[in-house]
Amino acid sequence: MPNPPPAEIQFRAQNQLSELFAALDSGTGREVRRMLGTLTPQSIAQLLESSPPRIRQVIWELIDKEVEGEVLQELSDEVQSQILATLDTEEMVALMEGLHADDIADILQQLPERVMAEVLSAMSERDRQRVERVLPYDEETAGGLMDTDTISVRPNLTLDVVLRYLRRHEQLPESTDNLFVVNRKDQYIGLLPLSKLLTTDPSVTVREVMNTDVEPIPADLADSEVARLFEKYDWITAPVVDQDNRLLGRITIDDVVDVIREDADHSLMSLAGLDEEEDTFAPIRRTARRRAVWLGINLLTALLASWVISLFQGTLDKVVALAVLMPIVASMGGVAGSQTLTVVIRGMALGQIGRSNLNWLLSRELGSGALNALLWSMVMGLVAGLWFGDARIALIILAAMIINLITAALAGAILPVVLRAMRIDPALAGGVALTTVTDVVGFMSFLGLAAWYYG
Amino acid sequence: MPNPPPAEIQFRAQNQLSELFAALDSGTGREVRRMLGTLTPQSIAQLLESSPPRIRQVIWELIDKEVEGEVLQELSDEVQSQILATLDTEEMVALMEGLHADDIADILQQLPERVMAEVLSAMSERDRQRVERVLPYDEETAGGLMDTDTISVRPNLTLDVVLRYLRRHEQLPESTDNLFVVNRKDQYIGLLPLSKLLTTDPSVTVREVMNTDVEPIPADLADSEVARLFEKYDWITAPVVDQDNRLLGRITIDDVVDVIREDADHSLMSLAGLDEEEDTFAPIRRTARRRAVWLGINLLTALLASWVISLFQGTLDKVVALAVLMPIVASMGGVAGSQTLTVVIRGMALGQIGRSNLNWLLSRELGSGALNALLWSMVMGLVAGLWFGDARIALIILAAMIINLITAALAGAILPVVLRAMRIDPALAGGVALTTVTDVVGFMSFLGLAAWYYG
Repeated sequence: MPNPPPAEIQFRAQNQLSELFAALDSGTGREVRRMLGTLTPQSIAQLLESSPPRIRQVIWELIDKEVEGEVLQELSDEVQSQILATLDTEEMVALMEGLHADDIADILQQLPERVMAEVLSAMSERDRQRVERVLPYDEETAGGLMDTDTISVRPNLTLDVVLRYLRRHEQLPESTDNLFVVNRKDQYIGLLPLSKLLTTDPSVTVREVMNTDVEPIPADLADSEVARLFEKYDWITAPVVDQDNRLLGRITIDDVVDVIREDADHSLMSLAGLDEEEDTFAPIRRTARRRAVWLGINLLTALLASWVISLFQGTLDKVVALAVLMPIVASMGGVAGSQTLTVVIRGMALGQIGRSNLNWLLSRELGSGALNALLWSMVMGLVAGLWFGDARIALIILAAMIINLITAALAGAILPVVLRAMRIDPALAGGVALTTVTDVVGFMSFLGLAAWYYG
Repeated sequence: MPNPPPAEIQFRAQNQLSELFAALDSGTGREVRRMLGTLTPQSIAQLLESSPPRIRQVIWELIDKEVEGEVLQELSDEVQSQILATLDTEEMVALMEGLHADDIADILQQLPERVMAEVLSAMSERDRQRVERVLPYDEETAGGLMDTDTISVRPNLTLDVVLRYLRRHEQLPESTDNLFVVNRKDQYIGLLPLSKLLTTDPSVTVREVMNTDVEPIPADLADSEVARLFEKYDWITAPVVDQDNRLLGRITIDDVVDVIREDADHSLMSLAGLDEEEDTFAPIRRTARRRAVWLGINLLTALLASWVISLFQGTLDKVVALAVLMPIVASMGGVAGSQTLTVVIRGMALGQIGRSNLNWLLSRELGSGALNALLWSMVMGLVAGLWFGDARIALIILAAMIINLITAALAGAILPVVLRAMRIDPALAGGVALTTVTDVVGFMSFLGLAAWYYG
């Protein structure tokens, strides 16, 4: 298990934040500007993400123009759009200078169509061309992740020629670990690792040492699939090609890490009805509006559960102890089901679950659910019997808990699979659907058994 | 938002799995072995992770001895230990040959002390030494993540000498993007990027072109901090040093990606009382045993809520409609609170939340919570009034929901911070603590108000 949040470094970041807030309080922009000047763009972005919106705007004004672009690109989509909304076309063009084509495209895609067109036409010819090659691709595909800074070589060159060609560059694109080998039609053939270039006799040709094991990534592959390939094969960069196998650009691991982080956040946030891009410091109104929807949906399911209870008002009137115990049956079902649900959703996100192992998983959950149902229903039966001195109520809660815990295990395993087949995000809808089942079945079985028993 | 799980590739992996299961069913090991022979170690590991335990053992027996080590290292800790438990010392030593020191150390740390000592003494002198340099470090620190495959050079050499030195290597360590510059005492001074080496005039010295901006990582830094540094600075490899700044090894991005994935999974799994290393296909008994603890804890908190209800049996006996409506108050509080809790836990994991912005966050949650409390309590008041034709019950549920939703927002924001200060993992304990608060306050406020109102 990971340690609890590491104190020292967290502390350092929080110190920067406190220092910054103190400087802002003192009211002199100079002090803040001096402090920001000592920080990397990444640290400034972290400070912005950790600040409430009003302070964010103040900090932004004080950032050195030179690093604005780099800072902006490090921000999450939501904070990015907030800041972009305050800039005019000229400012946007200025800060995009020197950024990678894929990062510019990401930023442009946050803008309204009209503004995007304005910014594009105000950019230099060269920058516009670079960006327009990337823009057609959806942000969540390989094409949207790629940048176009690649160095490609022909297979018939000797390494010596390649070495001399490289030496003519001022510097290589960031994170370059491979050159791409292409034919005359610019079609991808293989990789030439820099390390091979450095350890092989310079008189051999590229073709003889190139690596043809790595399949290029199609531009329309979903970004989470790209991430899975990078994770699986420990890539640092990988080539992206179009349908005709023509080299379009490359994807670098740093952009993939962001995808991994977001995908992993997605399950966590969705289970609470939140968006993984959600700004931790979004203003009150926006926060309230977003959460309202989720609360409204939950109110509907809670009303359904209440309606089930209302069917048994007569029985509740007779035996008030039932009202005391009924939340336990529903709550235990909810917890048991959400454990199964979480395991299945994670397994699906990791690509482990499909038709061939689903049956096994179902029977495992059923078995494990049954064991825990037996254990805790007996414990609870005993507690209820002693508490109310009534064997009947003990038997009723025992039976109801067995029914609800087994139902919960089944629902937790089946719901995400069914939702996925219906093309509904299981992480988002799974939690509500599950609680609805466990509440309804919980109240129904407990009060239903009681109604039958007490007549 | 990420797309729903990408159908095609998922499909491909699932196809491999179905094919494998079919081959296993046909009963001829030859067919399975042939199929496994066409797969990369990473794909085989994925198949093992996606298989129930008994099939896992069968597959393992059929894997080519040559790739066993690579397959093993790709597996999660839990599946690794399962397989290790079936091997003898000799087999373990054989499969560890050719693995990185850090991966061997990770595997060894899964073993009982006695077995680990046996395996170590059966290893070759050279391998043992490599591993023993890494073993003292906790698996969850920079030292535990590093491997010792580094190439280091002296600052006074010319690039030409370095180039000739590299050419004497058969190949460079995987993912090498930098050479490390060290002084006579083996102390870290700077980085020499391979790309610099390829683009700079060979007659200049290492000192003139080396990069001294990157601070080395102390061996005892927590792995999640290492991950944050890599994410922040887009590193591919980074040097690890001891207290005296002596170079110990390097960390590569592929190991960091695993840390990021695990840390992100941690919050998700912990909120359901699960361990992020949990094997999706763990056998029934193990699954049941682990989940039992969590269900037991939840039963205690549910009993506490029941006890609160039992205080108001008299009132419930008088007005049975209260029993019908009371779960709504508790449920809405639970949902509202868990939204806040999730945002705060994620913010803490990203290092965004500290003393300086906590107050702002609290007041935002309070504000947003109050808005939604007003909205939904009025809706619910209306529904309850119409349903039971009783204005009193409408007012009671309205007031109780306002109280509980605001409490939920406060508890969701404060609990994780308090838990962290108490060195309790907020992701693990936050959910239970929160539901306890929202259930108790929900029932208490609703039934308490009713008791006071109906006398």
